[in-house]
Amino acid sequence: MTGSGEPEGSGEDRLIARHFAPLATHPGALGLLDDVALLTPPEHCELVLETDAIVSGMHFFPDDPPASVAQKALRINLSDLAAKGARPLGFLLSLALPKGASRPATDAWLTPFARALGEDAQAYGCPLLGGDTVASPGPVMISITVIGAVPTGTLVRRRGARPGDRLLVTGTIGDAVLGLLVRLERAAPEDFGLDAAGRDHLISRYLVPRPRNALAEAVRTHASAAMDVSDGLVGDLAKLCAASGVTARIETVRLPLSDAAHRMLAAAPELLATVLSGGDDYEIVCAVAPERVGSFLAAAAAAGVPATEIGEIVAGQGAPRVIGPDGATVALDRASFSHF
Amino acid sequence: MTGSGEPEGSGEDRLIARHFAPLATHPGALGLLDDVALLTPPEHCELVLETDAIVSGMHFFPDDPPASVAQKALRINLSDLAAKGARPLGFLLSLALPKGASRPATDAWLTPFARALGEDAQAYGCPLLGGDTVASPGPVMISITVIGAVPTGTLVRRRGARPGDRLLVTGTIGDAVLGLLVRLERAAPEDFGLDAAGRDHLISRYLVPRPRNALAEAVRTHASAAMDVSDGLVGDLAKLCAASGVTARIETVRLPLSDAAHRMLAAAPELLATVLSGGDDYEIVCAVAPERVGSFLAAAAAAGVPATEIGEIVAGQGAPRVIGPDGATVALDRASFSHF
Repeated sequence: MTGSGEPEGSGEDRLIARHFAPLATHPGALGLLDDVALLTPPEHCELVLETDAIVSGMHFFPDDPPASVAQKALRINLSDLAAKGARPLGFLLSLALPKGASRPATDAWLTPFARALGEDAQAYGCPLLGGDTVASPGPVMISITVIGAVPTGTLVRRRGARPGDRLLVTGTIGDAVLGLLVRLERAAPEDFGLDAAGRDHLISRYLVPRPRNALAEAVRTHASAAMDVSDGLVGDLAKLCAASGVTARIETVRLPLSDAAHRMLAAAPELLATVLSGGDDYEIVCAVAPERVGSFLAAAAAAGVPATEIGEIVAGQGAPRVIGPDGATVALDRASFSHF
Repeated sequence: MTGSGEPEGSGEDRLIARHFAPLATHPGALGLLDDVALLTPPEHCELVLETDAIVSGMHFFPDDPPASVAQKALRINLSDLAAKGARPLGFLLSLALPKGASRPATDAWLTPFARALGEDAQAYGCPLLGGDTVASPGPVMISITVIGAVPTGTLVRRRGARPGDRLLVTGTIGDAVLGLLVRLERAAPEDFGLDAAGRDHLISRYLVPRPRNALAEAVRTHASAAMDVSDGLVGDLAKLCAASGVTARIETVRLPLSDAAHRMLAAAPELLATVLSGGDDYEIVCAVAPERVGSFLAAAAAAGVPATEIGEIVAGQGAPRVIGPDGATVALDRASFSHF
């Protein structure tokens, strides 16, 4: 992302100068006034690179608040760094905006978008380094590349889980997909005993991920394998198991659920499959050797991140076995979510 | 970009396994089988980061060959590295594909796209490290982030040009925008004395940039300021001048033009303004101190990159002065191209 700084600059230059240059506080951003960004890599570290995109009408609703769209776009990337034990260094933003939108409409959308992006950049210690803004005949699309770092050789992979490792997840599972159902009005809140606070909780969990970057160091120190839960717990766990050459067993009674999710599941037990396979949790699932679970939980508590043991890694192959409240295996139509 | 490697994976996993995993030859790509990529930064270097996106119907035509779309998407990013004196280390790909396209149609488009991307990655020494593939209700969009490196402190900036520096450009100017006119059939080739070869030359220059990465070291060694010419020579030069606190004078008779561009300008001299302000050249414009011009030209010749002196940096402010064949200043309606 570059801008001439001149008043007679192009529309892109104007957008950058007005909305994004104020975010470019990192010296390597060069004020967004050059063609590239500069980053001095930390010593004795490897860089951890990740890119994730979201598209209006697919990953968020066109009328979602621009601030939450910005938060989602950055945080889904930060979530991957957290799950790999990496700390963020900065990000690049690629933004497609609908061609032909009026200047006031574009400014009205970009003002809260850029403000929220700047606040998140500061809160997560992940400054804007550069980017590109293009016009598109299609919907808004935001692609963010984050750059993080781990001490050399310490990246936490999907592979590495060993039979006997305990499986832990952070936070609560299923809120976002239930929030999406409520948002789509496919689930009427009152039918599920949800009050306004419960409804708002679920919808906000869909709108705004809470990546667990505070836990990155504990993951790096204690986990034998980890990934973020973005496409559904069971499907993502299946990927971790496949990469590790193992399988797993989890118990649904141990799943950490929010009060609102508990209420919805009490009213409609069939939503359990949705909770297990729905996307957008942005929590961390990790395998931790039994003797390290105590230290991991202590570190999580110190970081203010809830973590819950939900099962264990088992020798073997194939999809993880999900044991329901009655002790029987839960059958899932699909293990994870795909837009394709 | 991640894939489970399992046959029952999601549509995204299938696309990645089929089309992109074969490109993931760099060990840091982790086979596209984890959540992130790893990169060991070179010693004593700063990282140079750049992201540029292209959208179907805006930066390329929906019926452009998928191979040339891939080449354009990567090369416009490589061009920025070249102009800053940086060498490429790798790239991340963010790809939005139309939702609802049939699997055969998607495969038919992605097969040549991915093959060309892989060939360019090898040719430019810029391996695929990771990425994300998403479905979109809109057109194809490709956002690429390249990561490069320069020895610490040696990035060539837009600022740094000094009065008296000579201005040089690589290759030829204006071919791409003339190719676009021909492609749009706004300029009938036969009216401009273009034969099939001339027509094909111009259109291919629009379709497929030729970034000057072979010249990066010479730019880094000799240029006091540089940028790539992507939005039009005069507008981009104005940005370099503004960043350097100087202005410039260039002479149109010294502009390096291809034979085909010469023919079109001979038939329609009014196209000179288009050549000067049209985009998509992806050449390098740089300021070089007079005593270094000889060494720079020798290095360019050794690298096989044509370079031509077109003017000089002048003390003062304001837009560069463009001197036409008659010695008078050429007036330009606009100095550069903007989609907004």
